[in-house]
Amino acid sequence: MATTKGAATSARLVESMLELIQRNGYAGTGLNTVTEHAGAPKGSLYFHFPEGKEALGEKAVELAAARFGSLVGDSVLEGAAPGQVVRGVLDVLAGILTDSDFQLGCPVSVVTLEMGAQSERLRFACANAFESWIAPVTDLLVARGRPESTARARATAVVSMVEGAVIVSRAQRSTEPLRFAADALALLLDQEAAS
Amino acid sequence: MATTKGAATSARLVESMLELIQRNGYAGTGLNTVTEHAGAPKGSLYFHFPEGKEALGEKAVELAAARFGSLVGDSVLEGAAPGQVVRGVLDVLAGILTDSDFQLGCPVSVVTLEMGAQSERLRFACANAFESWIAPVTDLLVARGRPESTARARATAVVSMVEGAVIVSRAQRSTEPLRFAADALALLLDQEAAS
Repeated sequence: MATTKGAATSARLVESMLELIQRNGYAGTGLNTVTEHAGAPKGSLYFHFPEGKEALGEKAVELAAARFGSLVGDSVLEGAAPGQVVRGVLDVLAGILTDSDFQLGCPVSVVTLEMGAQSERLRFACANAFESWIAPVTDLLVARGRPESTARARATAVVSMVEGAVIVSRAQRSTEPLRFAADALALLLDQEAAS
Repeated sequence: MATTKGAATSARLVESMLELIQRNGYAGTGLNTVTEHAGAPKGSLYFHFPEGKEALGEKAVELAAARFGSLVGDSVLEGAAPGQVVRGVLDVLAGILTDSDFQLGCPVSVVTLEMGAQSERLRFACANAFESWIAPVTDLLVARGRPESTARARATAVVSMVEGAVIVSRAQRSTEPLRFAADALALLLDQEAAS
């Protein structure tokens, strides 16, 4: 029971860290704010994360990787054409941006940009997160008959476009860049599939 | 003479703020660090930027917008095909990443992600920066015969892909994502130009 409760507190702390990073970045997220946001008792953060902020940030990046990865995975399972899959993912992201009044960005991007020069541990977690999104898109393109090497190159470009479109959309407070990204990627991926 | 010296100090402070934001983000950049990095006298920051960090950050974003804008403008002036122009820009960015041992990211992306929810002034500066890069690419595509509306949509997708590719490259400590972005954009833009 205690362990269950402890696990629940730990999960809430990671959830809060993730949401606060999406909103304000990593450096701008204080651990007291995380504890309050999670409604967790003071001291519980260092009990569950004795290594502190870097360890909690790593868990938040891993959670973001798993969440977005399952979104990509679910979209792929529908067996749609690559362009449709990408459009479906971008539609979900557009919903997240509008529902949050354009206050939430990608936690992996912001942690990469803030901490890439300071924490090899966080940089590595971010590289793994990107890889966990590139891999299923690569598999999708290979399943559609693309050679592995070009499939991986295109999948990396897809993830890059999606990451950038979220940022431009947030800056412009408009989902238009996400739609433009979907149109461009659908054209790129489905044209090639057809060729 | 005093004003010239003052202008030089002010410019050094903006330069240092820009470089430190590229390296560690906005929240992670302290004003004392900026003053030291600029080799400026203590107190000079509040003398030149009485409004403080937000005003200095705005100037840094504007400087980044002008720098990258002139890089895009110079590439466009060469009159190359859109795909070649984009490849040229991405080659320069790859050089910046490798020369900095992958320590420098895009200051506009990181300020958008960290401060978009907190500072309308900085969010607006970032939106203007993206617009200042989207506009010349739109003009380039229009000059190549694309209708204004689709040219703007593609130009926005190009800027999104470039922003995202810089982030994925930094996370992976590899310029491969930048090359993959150049390949994908060249295919997208030049295929369309040909069609």
